[in-house]
Amino acid sequence: MDDAPLSLAPDLASRFAAIVGPANALTDADLIRPYLTEPRDLYRGAARLVLRPKSTEEVAAILRLASETRTPVVPQGGNTGLVGGQSPRSPAEVLLSLSRLDRIREVDPVGRVLVAEAGVVLAKAQEAANAAGLLLPLSLGSEGSCQIGGNLSSNAGGTAVIAYGNARDLCLGLEAVLPSGEVIEGLRRLRKDNRGYDWKDLLIGAEGTLAVITAAVLKLFPKPAGREVAYVGLASPAQALRLLGRAQDRAGGQLTGFEFMARIAMEFTLKHTQGARDPLAAPHPWYVLVEISSQRSAEDARETMETLLGEAFEEGIVEDAAIAQSLGDAADFWRMREEMSWAQKPEGGSIKHDVGVPVARVPDFLREADAAVLNAVPGARIVAFGHLGDGNIHYNISQPVGADKAAFLDRWGEINELVHGIALSMNGTFSAEHGIGQLKRDELARVKQGPEIELMRALKATFDPFRILNPGKLV
Amino acid sequence: MDDAPLSLAPDLASRFAAIVGPANALTDADLIRPYLTEPRDLYRGAARLVLRPKSTEEVAAILRLASETRTPVVPQGGNTGLVGGQSPRSPAEVLLSLSRLDRIREVDPVGRVLVAEAGVVLAKAQEAANAAGLLLPLSLGSEGSCQIGGNLSSNAGGTAVIAYGNARDLCLGLEAVLPSGEVIEGLRRLRKDNRGYDWKDLLIGAEGTLAVITAAVLKLFPKPAGREVAYVGLASPAQALRLLGRAQDRAGGQLTGFEFMARIAMEFTLKHTQGARDPLAAPHPWYVLVEISSQRSAEDARETMETLLGEAFEEGIVEDAAIAQSLGDAADFWRMREEMSWAQKPEGGSIKHDVGVPVARVPDFLREADAAVLNAVPGARIVAFGHLGDGNIHYNISQPVGADKAAFLDRWGEINELVHGIALSMNGTFSAEHGIGQLKRDELARVKQGPEIELMRALKATFDPFRILNPGKLV
Repeated sequence: MDDAPLSLAPDLASRFAAIVGPANALTDADLIRPYLTEPRDLYRGAARLVLRPKSTEEVAAILRLASETRTPVVPQGGNTGLVGGQSPRSPAEVLLSLSRLDRIREVDPVGRVLVAEAGVVLAKAQEAANAAGLLLPLSLGSEGSCQIGGNLSSNAGGTAVIAYGNARDLCLGLEAVLPSGEVIEGLRRLRKDNRGYDWKDLLIGAEGTLAVITAAVLKLFPKPAGREVAYVGLASPAQALRLLGRAQDRAGGQLTGFEFMARIAMEFTLKHTQGARDPLAAPHPWYVLVEISSQRSAEDARETMETLLGEAFEEGIVEDAAIAQSLGDAADFWRMREEMSWAQKPEGGSIKHDVGVPVARVPDFLREADAAVLNAVPGARIVAFGHLGDGNIHYNISQPVGADKAAFLDRWGEINELVHGIALSMNGTFSAEHGIGQLKRDELARVKQGPEIELMRALKATFDPFRILNPGKLV
Repeated sequence: MDDAPLSLAPDLASRFAAIVGPANALTDADLIRPYLTEPRDLYRGAARLVLRPKSTEEVAAILRLASETRTPVVPQGGNTGLVGGQSPRSPAEVLLSLSRLDRIREVDPVGRVLVAEAGVVLAKAQEAANAAGLLLPLSLGSEGSCQIGGNLSSNAGGTAVIAYGNARDLCLGLEAVLPSGEVIEGLRRLRKDNRGYDWKDLLIGAEGTLAVITAAVLKLFPKPAGREVAYVGLASPAQALRLLGRAQDRAGGQLTGFEFMARIAMEFTLKHTQGARDPLAAPHPWYVLVEISSQRSAEDARETMETLLGEAFEEGIVEDAAIAQSLGDAADFWRMREEMSWAQKPEGGSIKHDVGVPVARVPDFLREADAAVLNAVPGARIVAFGHLGDGNIHYNISQPVGADKAAFLDRWGEINELVHGIALSMNGTFSAEHGIGQLKRDELARVKQGPEIELMRALKATFDPFRILNPGKLV
């Protein structure tokens, strides 16, 4: 598919190196290694040259040369992607790290926007917003290392989507470099602008296959005056769904978090996370973490939470609930949720899913998928958790106790097919937030019907006729 | 630019007519006329054949034939567009009316979505949502006749953008027909789905130049439990901006309306709208209509509004304010704003603008633009009003009293250039919500820098290689 040569010619490597200077053209295997491994350890990148440009102009020069010489280029941000989108597939590919484009160009508290370069770490952007008395709501487990460019290229989701939307919803304008090296200057900060085709939203979520995002204008929001977090125990996903409906009716846009998780996810986290404690006295089959924020006051948030939970008790929706009594409590509650992915690791192999279904179908999905998975792998431990308000479930399968890890992981494709099939039968998705990358590229081609995948291929060809940008990813 | 032949061959017309049946292939001049005139009377459409398909399949058959025969096709919804995007430019063009695709396919109250065909009138979709106990927040002056397909194709804005976003933000999925006649099936109803390129957002706002939208999945929201509307008098745009900041801090996402208007806009409306009355006792230089909604209760909305206005009085931000005491009052307050465009008509010629600037720059924009316009046209009456929360101003210039209407309107381009130049100098836009169509096509080509307009042209060529879809519009 990708017309990559088998290796990168030395003279070509020097021409690339000349653009960024020798100190920022890494070829030493030890220096390159961190760019080639990735969080899930599914892919080992193969590049032998890592370029670290400092400016949009340097990115443009790199892509111009890459275009002229048909050299494949793999853009990379914080290297936290979960589908191999940031991993080079061949030694002939040049890895383009955006990490040194790390300037926050502006924070505008009146216009409520922040202009960040692609390599700004998400947590740093959050802090800059915070320092200006505002909120950048994008929030992910990897926020300490993921970068704005990667967040946008993967249209990152996270825990605040229910109230603020995903990365696409938070972006007003982009600066990007086309594969030809031309810079598209679209750092607009307007809330409304109907001037022609919306290429911005096409680049967002394109996983670096259409252009390289170099900077973005992000929306900021008023910081809530009060925030309440509660841990709720309940009997079933259906009850969690009822609680969600109640919470949306009661709190509307003030509902800033609604995460749910199965008991086993709690157990793994309690077992493997230092200092973790169960917020509730007795175990429950399912849990929900509810966060309500108020623009008005802490009391207002408290009142809304108490009213919500009071009603939910009366109607028998919830079994037990604990409201965080301090900021420390709230942080502990959130930490339980955030550690859930990592807490699976000590339990052996885990086959991951990032499915989404229409919110109302979540209980059906869990019932059908559980039956199918347990039928295929008796003893499998189903660790389901995720963003119920978005219908997005991280439906992860830990291996049966004592099973052979490698043999279990060999069934990744088979189990994916089962689980994805059930999600798709409910008009769902097999990639709600993690994207396609290498991991799900073949599946995308299989599942999307003819005209849609053809359209995607045509768009790729329009932007990148020589297929130099992140080949073998997405489409 | 557009390779349209000069007329439509009779045998070709019959082939098109055969697809929809003779009753829905209009050729009679009287029957066609309503499709050829438009609200501003700037364009007279030139088509001699209007096709009224009833299904997506018929739309597909029409486009297939159009592609084969290179016949230009102009899609049209409710024919309420303000930039001539829906008007055929040549007698050889076939007008494709989506009006008979008028089924609401589904209202899903649990998943909170509505699936509507392109020809569903916006008000009908609002009513269907309302009947299910939910809110479809898209709200425009023309909602009684504009249609969902047109709303999406023009990425409609309106008065609820500040809280709920524009049409793009409200759409989860699309079904569309490519110029080739192929149907792209993307009626997804997921809150999160990261599977490949976001062609949906590319079609939204493309003004029917890339594909024909035939159906859409729209987000619904809980109906507010309480709603308060206030009319506020204040001294200046700068004070209106301060009030906006306060309102956003106080009400956050509960701020569901923030419209502002100059005294003269009020005067015209009071003079020319039957039954209109000034909500405030004395005149003020500027006005703001504030709407606050609460998910909790009417009292809660009331309390927020009273707190906001109380503080604003104390700080000297507002001069006077009236809170609507009944639903009737609230409707009257909104009607004042909604009639503002039409109230200019009896005052003679009006040169219109739909500019947007970063919210914080609105006062600067008004000062600079007023000076420039009055310098060019002494005695011009500047009727500024719009969506302050979005930085979007309908900056309309009524002719001087007693001036010659035609001579004044002849200066449309010259005045546009002045006003747009000032907006652009502030990183603003000359089309915040109305789009490009025919009216602003040349200006778009002039203003967008090289790579961006070239990219738009490449996207057009990718979707529509034979340029049959809405030629001469947008790009």
